[in-house]
Amino acid sequence: MLIDRLVNRITALSAPIVVGLDPRLDQIPSFIKEAAFAKHGKTPTAVAEIFYTFNTAIIDAVCDIVPAVKPQIALYEQFGTAGFESYLQTVAYAKSKGLIVIGDIKRGDIASTAQAYSNAHIGRVDIGGESVEIAQTDFITINPYMGFDSVEPYLSDCKQYDKGLFVLVKTSNNGSCDIQDVLISTEREFFEYDERPGAHIPCLGCEMGDYLAPLYAHVGELVETWGEESIGECGYSSIGAVVGATHPIEAVKLRRLMTKTFFLVPGYGAQGGSGKDLKDLWTKNFGAIVGSSRGITGAYQSEKYKCDEKDFAKATRQAALDMKADLETYLP
Amino acid sequence: MLIDRLVNRITALSAPIVVGLDPRLDQIPSFIKEAAFAKHGKTPTAVAEIFYTFNTAIIDAVCDIVPAVKPQIALYEQFGTAGFESYLQTVAYAKSKGLIVIGDIKRGDIASTAQAYSNAHIGRVDIGGESVEIAQTDFITINPYMGFDSVEPYLSDCKQYDKGLFVLVKTSNNGSCDIQDVLISTEREFFEYDERPGAHIPCLGCEMGDYLAPLYAHVGELVETWGEESIGECGYSSIGAVVGATHPIEAVKLRRLMTKTFFLVPGYGAQGGSGKDLKDLWTKNFGAIVGSSRGITGAYQSEKYKCDEKDFAKATRQAALDMKADLETYLP
Repeated sequence: MLIDRLVNRITALSAPIVVGLDPRLDQIPSFIKEAAFAKHGKTPTAVAEIFYTFNTAIIDAVCDIVPAVKPQIALYEQFGTAGFESYLQTVAYAKSKGLIVIGDIKRGDIASTAQAYSNAHIGRVDIGGESVEIAQTDFITINPYMGFDSVEPYLSDCKQYDKGLFVLVKTSNNGSCDIQDVLISTEREFFEYDERPGAHIPCLGCEMGDYLAPLYAHVGELVETWGEESIGECGYSSIGAVVGATHPIEAVKLRRLMTKTFFLVPGYGAQGGSGKDLKDLWTKNFGAIVGSSRGITGAYQSEKYKCDEKDFAKATRQAALDMKADLETYLP
Repeated sequence: MLIDRLVNRITALSAPIVVGLDPRLDQIPSFIKEAAFAKHGKTPTAVAEIFYTFNTAIIDAVCDIVPAVKPQIALYEQFGTAGFESYLQTVAYAKSKGLIVIGDIKRGDIASTAQAYSNAHIGRVDIGGESVEIAQTDFITINPYMGFDSVEPYLSDCKQYDKGLFVLVKTSNNGSCDIQDVLISTEREFFEYDERPGAHIPCLGCEMGDYLAPLYAHVGELVETWGEESIGECGYSSIGAVVGATHPIEAVKLRRLMTKTFFLVPGYGAQGGSGKDLKDLWTKNFGAIVGSSRGITGAYQSEKYKCDEKDFAKATRQAALDMKADLETYLP
């Protein structure tokens, strides 16, 4: 099962790391850009070539030391059709190098439409009786706001094609509190312990429930339920959750609540999360994979790894090795 | 301002209707499919041609009687690059016919990534100093689960390029209750009246708030706030909300709560909503636009409009006129 392959690869490499492939023109070496602009002008076609050239070098630099990569589709989609093609080619190249690919697409829609997204990204699409594969991604991220029937089509394709999901639960951005942290009325205590004010309040006057809990706990519990039929030998489900590294307290609470759910943890490095922040997150078989994008792919631009831009891939490899060492310091 | 143009066009046509362009191969006449398959085989390229041929005929059939169309990007994206191109071409054709285009993309991501989606769909993308427009959509739908900072980039592009949003609040699917209807703790009563049990409960024991309200009310109130700086002469904001026709009680509650927010109301027709269900929704300047997809574009396949498939566009026009009449019966 996919989740077992991911856990085995993380274990073999001792690297619970996914490298984000989020290409931005201002973070790509000039010599790559100039070559493509000379050929194609300042066009989406040029950008697609730039992204692919950059990504393949990054993939070559890290494919033997990390188990997975995570292209963020928005960065490609903003360049239209050529950008979209470049996303698909990046996914295919990463697969050809033996990497597990997490498509960071954060889609969400009603059932019949969700099925179309699922067809595109983890399933197959039917063309007059021909079954066609569009993207070769292993996992995709999805948004749960529309509820179970908006998630069901993906679950079914995950089983049929041995694919997986990471469902947004508590995201890494500051604004995640606006909706995800709203206190809801519940019938029982969600968390065994909680130091924060407001997150663990008995609410004896409510008719609907005796306790309050943040919405993300409810969503986390739903995701745990949605994954029950896809649990691998490693003890985790191929239906995982996105839990930001920038909210370590919430992450640990969710870790205790969602014992069978593997976490995708974005927000390490450039977004502010560190190995130390994550020290209480680790459990049997890691239980989580931590994402870093700019901190690794844009390393050659940073103070620490500054080098000739032609050596950008070497800086990337060193940054990934250093991230591995940082995480290992705090592994149990 | 965009919202004024939409309201003016709805008023001029007496048609608060948006036609969903959600092409599915099994709902497209055989003669269109056979011609494309003969040329391109059973390939994504053939599908892209089929979708464009079908959509342009639908657009021609309704562009003088409805103000807007709403292509659902998932149905195109599932056919990869060719499908994506066909989405962009459909948007461009609808614009060339004077229609307002609502891109039903339901995107949502952290700020820097949201900016990329915004660039693609309502803004511009920068390529080495060249500013390029990718999609010509007027409005897009977006998902609020990640909070304000995930919405902010769109708001800024809406102002700069006179574009608009419809933010998911209470969606038309059954599963919308799983998260959107969860009861949250609030400091005041959200609704003046409410007949449903559980949606209007004083909760005097809570420390965080004295009342309970469904989550969608909180999200609705956030959306109303996010739109405050984009209010047009019509009294509504270009930052609107998605509120499903299949939940008329909730829709009316939100109507009273969100007095400056224009509603996009999907779920009419094939999904079960009717003009009668919507009778209490209408207010000054309509305040809402109702979406129908299959009920209009697939009319030629239904009992009521059954005809030779070559006449599919005539059936579509008649279905749109009948929807207009149904809605008008219940307009104040």
